Amino acid sequence: MNVNDVSFERERPDVYGDAHPKALLRAIQEEGDYLVKLANQHIVSGDQFDQDTMKQLFRLAAKIESNPKRFSSPLQNKILISAFYEPSTRTRLSFESAWHRLGGDIMSITDRSTTGIAKGECLADVAEMFNNYGDCVVLRDNNESSLFEMMDSLRIPIINAGNGVDEHPTQALADMYAIFKWRPQLIDAENKTKIRIGVIGVPNKMRTVRSFLKCLSVFPHAVDELVIIHDEASSAQLFGAGQREELEARGIKIATTTELDDVLPSLDVVYINAISWEGDTFNTYGSAFHLTANSPLKEDAIILHPLARGEELSTDLDHTAHNWYFSQARGAVFLRMALLTCMVERAERVIDVV
Amino acid sequence: MNVNDVSFERERPDVYGDAHPKALLRAIQEEGDYLVKLANQHIVSGDQFDQDTMKQLFRLAAKIESNPKRFSSPLQNKILISAFYEPSTRTRLSFESAWHRLGGDIMSITDRSTTGIAKGECLADVAEMFNNYGDCVVLRDNNESSLFEMMDSLRIPIINAGNGVDEHPTQALADMYAIFKWRPQLIDAENKTKIRIGVIGVPNKMRTVRSFLKCLSVFPHAVDELVIIHDEASSAQLFGAGQREELEARGIKIATTTELDDVLPSLDVVYINAISWEGDTFNTYGSAFHLTANSPLKEDAIILHPLARGEELSTDLDHTAHNWYFSQARGAVFLRMALLTCMVERAERVIDVV
Amino acid sequence: MNVNDVSFERERPDVYGDAHPKALLRAIQEEGDYLVKLANQHIVSGDQFDQDTMKQLFRLAAKIESNPKRFSSPLQNKILISAFYEPSTRTRLSFESAWHRLGGDIMSITDRSTTGIAKGECLADVAEMFNNYGDCVVLRDNNESSLFEMMDSLRIPIINAGNGVDEHPTQALADMYAIFKWRPQLIDAENKTKIRIGVIGVPNKMRTVRSFLKCLSVFPHAVDELVIIHDEASSAQLFGAGQREELEARGIKIATTTELDDVLPSLDVVYINAISWEGDTFNTYGSAFHLTANSPLKEDAIILHPLARGEELSTDLDHTAHNWYFSQARGAVFLRMALLTCMVERAERVIDVV
Repeated sequence: MNVNDVSFERERPDVYGDAHPKALLRAIQEEGDYLVKLANQHIVSGDQFDQDTMKQLFRLAAKIESNPKRFSSPLQNKILISAFYEPSTRTRLSFESAWHRLGGDIMSITDRSTTGIAKGECLADVAEMFNNYGDCVVLRDNNESSLFEMMDSLRIPIINAGNGVDEHPTQALADMYAIFKWRPQLIDAENKTKIRIGVIGVPNKMRTVRSFLKCLSVFPHAVDELVIIHDEASSAQLFGAGQREELEARGIKIATTTELDDVLPSLDVVYINAISWEGDTFNTYGSAFHLTANSPLKEDAIILHPLARGEELSTDLDHTAHNWYFSQARGAVFLRMALLTCMVERAERVIDVV
Repeated sequence: MNVNDVSFERERPDVYGDAHPKALLRAIQEEGDYLVKLANQHIVSGDQFDQDTMKQLFRLAAKIESNPKRFSSPLQNKILISAFYEPSTRTRLSFESAWHRLGGDIMSITDRSTTGIAKGECLADVAEMFNNYGDCVVLRDNNESSLFEMMDSLRIPIINAGNGVDEHPTQALADMYAIFKWRPQLIDAENKTKIRIGVIGVPNKMRTVRSFLKCLSVFPHAVDELVIIHDEASSAQLFGAGQREELEARGIKIATTTELDDVLPSLDVVYINAISWEGDTFNTYGSAFHLTANSPLKEDAIILHPLARGEELSTDLDHTAHNWYFSQARGAVFLRMALLTCMVERAERVIDVV
Repeated sequence: MNVNDVSFERERPDVYGDAHPKALLRAIQEEGDYLVKLANQHIVSGDQFDQDTMKQLFRLAAKIESNPKRFSSPLQNKILISAFYEPSTRTRLSFESAWHRLGGDIMSITDRSTTGIAKGECLADVAEMFNNYGDCVVLRDNNESSLFEMMDSLRIPIINAGNGVDEHPTQALADMYAIFKWRPQLIDAENKTKIRIGVIGVPNKMRTVRSFLKCLSVFPHAVDELVIIHDEASSAQLFGAGQREELEARGIKIATTTELDDVLPSLDVVYINAISWEGDTFNTYGSAFHLTANSPLKEDAIILHPLARGEELSTDLDHTAHNWYFSQARGAVFLRMALLTCMVERAERVIDVV
């Protein structure tokens, strides 16, 4: 064995550099009050964030991403309860990494079968116990209602990290953060540039897409048109009751199509997802759609994907400039660092002017 | 979605305030030597605590509960091995939260199937390894003897966090701590007040009840009478060999009954449990008994329950003054903080006079 | 219950004292550059270590073992991803204990079924995520190739903690560290003492033996002869293609035998292992061989075993001076502390002269 075979490169590709977060940081004026207010909220839905709050969250995330070493202790003596009753590596570790980097401690639950819930313990009681054990809860459960059962008893904040097919709001915040890092000027309501966004997915069936569209619709000034790309099978169930109407009422122009390659050349951002969690299992939608290095993408278009990916997103795109999905995943850690710090009443340790 | 729906109250209900622990703290004179001595003991059974040691543990727990932020670092550089071979959320997180709040690090084992025990590794060897890896072990196993197999090889302390139907001593300490927080004067051997305690459960089948009665019997001056409330089916196996005789020899007067509502109006403390762990599964006893807001409870009676609860304890009691079971669960964290600190030779960091 | 029954001895038996590591520390001159260079390597195979690097690792391990309290913070703000997709207590906790003792934080994956890999996530993508979440990965997987799939995407170092039947290099380093602690003079290439080492096991089937022999062959000056003790059934598959030839080319004289008790009286070191991981299960080899207190061992011979043990190694040897397998396991923590510190670019915090 040659020692060269075991060497590796620590340097980041360009897209991961700090030029983008620094540009976004400069594009937003600090207004810390919006961050302080987050200490009184559970994080349940993409609906609960207004434009000002999101901007301040993205600003703080960008500040942390620009200089992570400055933020190694804001969560000292704070304990996270990381409760993943549904399988996950990526999301659990993203939250736990965010918490650890901020100096906090963690207790993990990675499997429903190892818990007292196996004895029939009700979630309201579990939540009552959580009040005594930690300072914040992150919950993923394939049961939509578990989150709400816990919320009733909690006196510490809880974050919805995916509740069935319903929502996954911090993923959506990370998605928006990626878009604004890519083009910081889009965040300014006075700005005249607009982008055309395609979503390959089923808004009614995918929690990531549902939450993303809610967050996107808070910035209608940045969106020229939203194009939902779906297969024939999904046509009838593409939107839930009132879902499309609400997005349109917020000022988002929506088109739908079943022809991916027809619309690709006009899209600035392509958001693709194929997996939908439903009950104890998952379904795959739109498996006819594939993005590859040969897809007719606009030259400067970027691709977002909440990951994990399947065959819909070819690895031959990984080394192209279209790949912003890795940056999106990386940025999610910083976005969560920003949000978690605010939720446990430590915003004053990270904002510049108190 | 309305942002008001996601808001929550951080303030604690009155019962969780610090008036009770402060009153208990004032009721006990510090004698730190009893705490220092705990560094030489495994924690196996309710039998091993004398009155003086328990008083000092309760005093330290009350001191921590009165001002938890003062105690964020006594376990710095100490590592807990949290080995839960039997399903548990509540107890595992209670111990882990206690350890983390004191500034220590944790390695968790939450499932026997993920361990080398699957390769046939014997527990004495596992314990020998634990000596190298950590500073304290917390063990839960549905096999009564696992604890003793490990103890033989250990040069670091181990805590029995539930061994089959045998014992669960830290739960019992937490139970007693709740009682003395409720009425601090009871801890004084000169005090003439006595309480009548009812236990809905089977002392011979429930590890929580077995350990609780052992700890209770160390304070016979506080107990007017102990009433065991059980169903007909449990009559023949209510006590184990010598169990009742030992309690009586320590000065506890014992009555038994099958009529809950007849005895309720005379009880000051009602301890209820319905689940008994037996081998790989659990049984439910006394499912005929239910406590609800309509039960004929004495006005100032309190209810204790080791949780998780089943149907035997109605949630309509949660918002009444009878509910001390949530305070009991909360206090368990502080009681464990007190005990753990002493066990790893850090008592001198938390007692006032060394 | 008598309180004496719950007491325990904190003092270590003599073999665990610090005389041995201190002697080894004195026997090696510090040359820190070899440690600094480890920051650019994944740890994959016993092949990748030359004599100088191993000597410096053993020196640093001995320095830490001689005074562990001096080394409580070199990994502050560093995060370990501890990914054990194959069952393990001992190895996982050994790594995690090493990391915690150095002041770092940990995220554990203890079960493949709780991860996104259940959704079909490919390992290259998992590794890409790991880049964002932590500073080092420890991986155990019964699939030999998982390690290599991850390496391609990693920009942080990974340690092979057992990949199928292939290798387990840090175990081998710990084995060598035990031998050199036992006889520090053996590490000196000018030294004329040589030892005769017997290995009860199948080099072609056991990852621990494979890696151990690779590391041993880096010190041919210390080895008089290597005797492989095997049963008839293993004869045909004792060595893999080129395995024996490579060891001999490095200067190791090799003999093989099926008669354990004939060769035992001449051996200075007896390395025994019986378990081989193969795919999802394990096989036992050489179950005819047993070491007991009655085996015809040389008076000052030592026994090594990677543990967990089966019936091949009798517990009646535990309290004899032949038992260096417990010291070997204990030393593995310090060896890993040394290696991990170097890998995450913190060598300068633990070497004396920078």
